[in-house]
Amino acid sequence: MLKVGIIGLGTVGSSVVKILQENEEIISARAGVKIVPAIGVARNLEKHKDLDIILSDNVDDILEDKSIDLVVELIGGVEQAYEIVKKALQKGKSVVTANKALLAYHRYELQELAEGKGFGFEASVAGGIPIIKALREGLSANKILSIKGILNGTCNYMLTKMIEEGVSFDEVLKEAQELGYAEADPTFDVGGFDASHKLLILASIAYGIDAKPEDILIEGIEGITREDIFFAKEFGYNIKLLAIAKKSRGKVELRVHPALIKKEQMIAKVDGVMNGISVVGDFVGETLYYGAGAGGDATASAVVSDIISIARGDASPMLGFKKLGSFDHLTLVESDDIKSEYYVRMSVVDEIGVLSKTSSIFAKFGISIDSFLQKSSKNKQRTTLLFSTHKCKESKIKSALKHIEHLEFVKEPPAMIRIED
Amino acid sequence: MLKVGIIGLGTVGSSVVKILQENEEIISARAGVKIVPAIGVARNLEKHKDLDIILSDNVDDILEDKSIDLVVELIGGVEQAYEIVKKALQKGKSVVTANKALLAYHRYELQELAEGKGFGFEASVAGGIPIIKALREGLSANKILSIKGILNGTCNYMLTKMIEEGVSFDEVLKEAQELGYAEADPTFDVGGFDASHKLLILASIAYGIDAKPEDILIEGIEGITREDIFFAKEFGYNIKLLAIAKKSRGKVELRVHPALIKKEQMIAKVDGVMNGISVVGDFVGETLYYGAGAGGDATASAVVSDIISIARGDASPMLGFKKLGSFDHLTLVESDDIKSEYYVRMSVVDEIGVLSKTSSIFAKFGISIDSFLQKSSKNKQRTTLLFSTHKCKESKIKSALKHIEHLEFVKEPPAMIRIED
Repeated sequence: MLKVGIIGLGTVGSSVVKILQENEEIISARAGVKIVPAIGVARNLEKHKDLDIILSDNVDDILEDKSIDLVVELIGGVEQAYEIVKKALQKGKSVVTANKALLAYHRYELQELAEGKGFGFEASVAGGIPIIKALREGLSANKILSIKGILNGTCNYMLTKMIEEGVSFDEVLKEAQELGYAEADPTFDVGGFDASHKLLILASIAYGIDAKPEDILIEGIEGITREDIFFAKEFGYNIKLLAIAKKSRGKVELRVHPALIKKEQMIAKVDGVMNGISVVGDFVGETLYYGAGAGGDATASAVVSDIISIARGDASPMLGFKKLGSFDHLTLVESDDIKSEYYVRMSVVDEIGVLSKTSSIFAKFGISIDSFLQKSSKNKQRTTLLFSTHKCKESKIKSALKHIEHLEFVKEPPAMIRIED
Repeated sequence: MLKVGIIGLGTVGSSVVKILQENEEIISARAGVKIVPAIGVARNLEKHKDLDIILSDNVDDILEDKSIDLVVELIGGVEQAYEIVKKALQKGKSVVTANKALLAYHRYELQELAEGKGFGFEASVAGGIPIIKALREGLSANKILSIKGILNGTCNYMLTKMIEEGVSFDEVLKEAQELGYAEADPTFDVGGFDASHKLLILASIAYGIDAKPEDILIEGIEGITREDIFFAKEFGYNIKLLAIAKKSRGKVELRVHPALIKKEQMIAKVDGVMNGISVVGDFVGETLYYGAGAGGDATASAVVSDIISIARGDASPMLGFKKLGSFDHLTLVESDDIKSEYYVRMSVVDEIGVLSKTSSIFAKFGISIDSFLQKSSKNKQRTTLLFSTHKCKESKIKSALKHIEHLEFVKEPPAMIRIED
């Protein structure tokens, strides 16, 4: 028998209890032992009295109980969760967590503490999709060339709506909030921060690289306009918030930002609240993983699957490496050194010479234009120029845009979206 | 150090050697030990003299060598491979195989023999896609409601071409053979047999069910015509060869056949030679796995990943269950009891009363028509009627078609394709 204590009984925690109870028979057949949700800790016990489990509002009732073999941490946040998980591991218990922020900041310390104890965190990235196991075990023969993930369901829902229905960011945000897909303060999701936490976890497994959210390029989807959507559709692109980890000349690029991707790519077909991760390995080629990235039941599916793996005696190293080697000296690519194709949007006064002056600046910085679209406007004085460029260094496009911004016919800072091939 | 002996040095075997050598550093970091391809056995040694590995044409040089820890079986076929694998396990060696036929017939015997020894077969289903691990570990919390797999790249390539370019089965088969995507005798692929072997492996992990290829419904894609493609496109379907395992009122449906599926479904978007598997779990909902289902490098990626898992001490039970429970008394649904929607194609003499007589037979069997299309024909005497039906029992549609076949204006046996929702 494996006795489980669950700290945090929100949607995921209560679903963990439900799965362990409803699927008890098949789970114990798969695990080889009976897995019992023995006790749940929550702040407001009254709210959870319908759960068929002993309740407590004191984490020590789990941490100090020697009969509890495995602790499920579902309170979220960084520091308090870290203390709880650390203590559980020090007491010799196994741990399963869905806490991406905890791992974004403390995964390497936890890896040391967890050595030989059983530590599961499949639920921290992409909810019910077993992407941690795929990367750590299923693709372990490969050098990972790139990971491109749609890891935030809120953003993907919003972008899908904007593309399919032509609604604005503000309209779709309001709708997403009403449907419960977006928080009252949506910054963590729409700003790309949630996806960045998940990306760092995946990048550790792929590359053994240590980085914190502050170290990497993170841009959200707040600036996407209807013109961007129009351009994307016109030229056969979809717009997605992508979390990207990519090997590049002996270094690693880690970045989260909206990107234009060709509609034919499999990852471009991941729509609505769903998540998807495309992984390219040097021998396996591209594989893609798709499913529900959030929601109590899907996330709890990953938590319980981790519990089962631990019950079976899972021997996979937490972050994929039994010992680090020379490849772990990989450093991050500076964002100025990224090479990409770019889409640029500019709002300008509609006068003679605008296009020639703008394009001469691009030329000056060695940036060559791939396609160009001028959108007719109701406002006779103003027009919008939409460009895409061939591949160039990010520092070049940034400098060019800074110069363009100061041209007198340019009425607001030009906007740029990267195009991923 | 883990010493590996490889039996069979075709495209997969030589790629296994190549991966172990080229990615040696990252593999040993992930595995925690150095993994050495020590010896390769093949019939024609001359062909493989470029491989940097000791060669032999005698399997006993691997099986009888106590220093070999792990045997990779890549000779294919059932009985000889079974003897080799059995002997290797009896000698206390671990085994990794890509042999789907071996597993389709002997997986339960092998599970017993492999107990405690390490047995990997990820490469036997869908090449480089880690679907075995996803199902056995990543989704282990769930009762599996259904698996729908595009598991044969040859068929998927051919059907994609037929849909995109309107070419006939015979034309595309010729082309696939020229490109090396189809064998000179394509029956094993286009007849659905290859997919059935893979389906049985997945169904064991999902349901603990024992069945052989002979026990299940297998239909190939040989009968798909341009009219079927026309109908599919007209009504928003794609046509795929699907391998389906589905829980259905306490029993399990296992079947391989071409199916019409709505274009919006993620599995319908898996095109060309690629494979994809959609798995629905009771808590996780739908997840989907996509990648290269064949090819030396992709398949070898799975083989080597299995070797790494075994080196790490993988503790997952071979077929997903540590012990079987009451759920393992699941039996197969008889094919007559399947319920589905159907598409029907009939070639008839174009005369008055044809439609009314045909539809009265459908009505007699309680089958209601969902959509109907009559395709104009160059041949004035002949016309093609295309129907789709609402859900009904397979025995009904079969009986109805048998009656229709004997109507005098029906010029060849009507054809039927199932519609999967």
